[in-house]
Amino acid sequence: MQAATGMDEPADSEPETGGFVRLRLDLSYDGTGFAGWAVQPGQRTVQGTVEAALAVVLRRPVHLTVAGRTDAGVHASGQVAHADVPMTVWVADGPNLLRRLAGVLPPDVRVHGIALAPPDFDARFAALSRRYVYRLSDAPWGVPPLRRLDTVGWSRSLDVEAIRQAAAGLIGLHDFTAFCKHRPYATATRTLQVLDWERLPGGLVVATVQADAFCHNMVRGLVGCLLGVGEGRRPVEWPVSLLAATERSGAVPVAPAHGLTLVDVTYPDDLDLSARTAQTRARRTDLPALRPES
Amino acid sequence: MQAATGMDEPADSEPETGGFVRLRLDLSYDGTGFAGWAVQPGQRTVQGTVEAALAVVLRRPVHLTVAGRTDAGVHASGQVAHADVPMTVWVADGPNLLRRLAGVLPPDVRVHGIALAPPDFDARFAALSRRYVYRLSDAPWGVPPLRRLDTVGWSRSLDVEAIRQAAAGLIGLHDFTAFCKHRPYATATRTLQVLDWERLPGGLVVATVQADAFCHNMVRGLVGCLLGVGEGRRPVEWPVSLLAATERSGAVPVAPAHGLTLVDVTYPDDLDLSARTAQTRARRTDLPALRPES
Repeated sequence: MQAATGMDEPADSEPETGGFVRLRLDLSYDGTGFAGWAVQPGQRTVQGTVEAALAVVLRRPVHLTVAGRTDAGVHASGQVAHADVPMTVWVADGPNLLRRLAGVLPPDVRVHGIALAPPDFDARFAALSRRYVYRLSDAPWGVPPLRRLDTVGWSRSLDVEAIRQAAAGLIGLHDFTAFCKHRPYATATRTLQVLDWERLPGGLVVATVQADAFCHNMVRGLVGCLLGVGEGRRPVEWPVSLLAATERSGAVPVAPAHGLTLVDVTYPDDLDLSARTAQTRARRTDLPALRPES
Repeated sequence: MQAATGMDEPADSEPETGGFVRLRLDLSYDGTGFAGWAVQPGQRTVQGTVEAALAVVLRRPVHLTVAGRTDAGVHASGQVAHADVPMTVWVADGPNLLRRLAGVLPPDVRVHGIALAPPDFDARFAALSRRYVYRLSDAPWGVPPLRRLDTVGWSRSLDVEAIRQAAAGLIGLHDFTAFCKHRPYATATRTLQVLDWERLPGGLVVATVQADAFCHNMVRGLVGCLLGVGEGRRPVEWPVSLLAATERSGAVPVAPAHGLTLVDVTYPDDLDLSARTAQTRARRTDLPALRPES
């Protein structure tokens, strides 16, 4: 599925105009068989697979810009991307696009929504928040077989109440450098909006993590640290103490990829889209990041 | 995993006594990689896999009797079985059995509960009801990737209200011969207790089907007929009209296996177990069935 559609346009190119329309795509995927979202030479990626399917159906190359550049093994049920296509193509192919894409895409990735978006809709820079869910089971018998694709088995039992206490201090605007994979010139200052942990029946522990945006590995770093608290290996105060760090902490364990699912991305009302995009760009692209974050 | 543990004891053997205890096992599995529950020569089956794991952990052959003999491709989250083991084995190995089995079993089958049961607990004959769930998506974009193991994609859109009307007339005590795969000398008279259909967000349609017991292929036959109504190919009255048949109807389509999951089995209070077992045996085993139903 990895056709030659991984064009090397900059990810932050301006919307095309002159007969082009901007489309919003809603996507879901099982990350198990993908080397992450972003196109990489010789790898099966979500971006490469969906761009190849769009190229088949629309008979032209299409470039996707995405809200969350998920890593290898990470899933999505609420990923969002945008693409620009000629108005004539949209008028001709729009009504059947969803069904035709379903026939071309492999079953581990689905485009479950395609709609005309305002020209200043930007899946990446206009997003107000991303929400992820992380699923674990600490039951002695393991992980429910039908959910083993997106649920991590944890061999030690977890104190969810201790995790909740540790998580409370991480909420808000902080420099999350300690939790993130280093990127030159990139800030790790983010607003963590939600960090909820819940114990469900059957040994299941589910974390919901929401921020305006995440730097690379941030969700899995946060979850990894909090699991250290939940196991009793680290004091409740430890995760908050890492906020003072000015570089990535080697003590931060990164939780396994396959427990993580991007479930939702929110955007402002149409009228506020360009203001939001301008604000995000100003804050995060003063200097070019080698690999864009989301 | 298919060790020589598929003993040829009759499935309805009396509980062993004299130093033996009866165990209740609660199981879940992803049916995708199994040729069904029941041991078959040269096939990977759930029974064969779990009996082999028990044999490793308990260092002796163990025979399982199950509540629902699921077909190839059918899943379970609430399957129940019983086994008889020497009291000495249970005392020695009981406390760590769940965790040790988890280490020996493959990830597509889990034993999520093991407990001492009354001697007259019979996973098959003492059951009061079995509940199955059938999952479909009629969304034009297909099936959510992370639930594609247990959700069937349906290419035509379904009228769930029409299905509900057709289903209402099937509730109660009936001869379901038209919906079942023929078994010599076996009655197909069952009490259908629940046949609910629900439309959920995201194009999902979920049926819940509960009866005192099911004959072979009965759930998938019921679902297949009702889908004919839901598609508009059959009148609402058609499924009920089949109840008058005295042999299997060739018009009954069998819905695909992988949408079906056994989710729950209920039993009477301990004091009523042997009465229930005697009642079920009298009704269903006057003549030997070639292959026991559940």
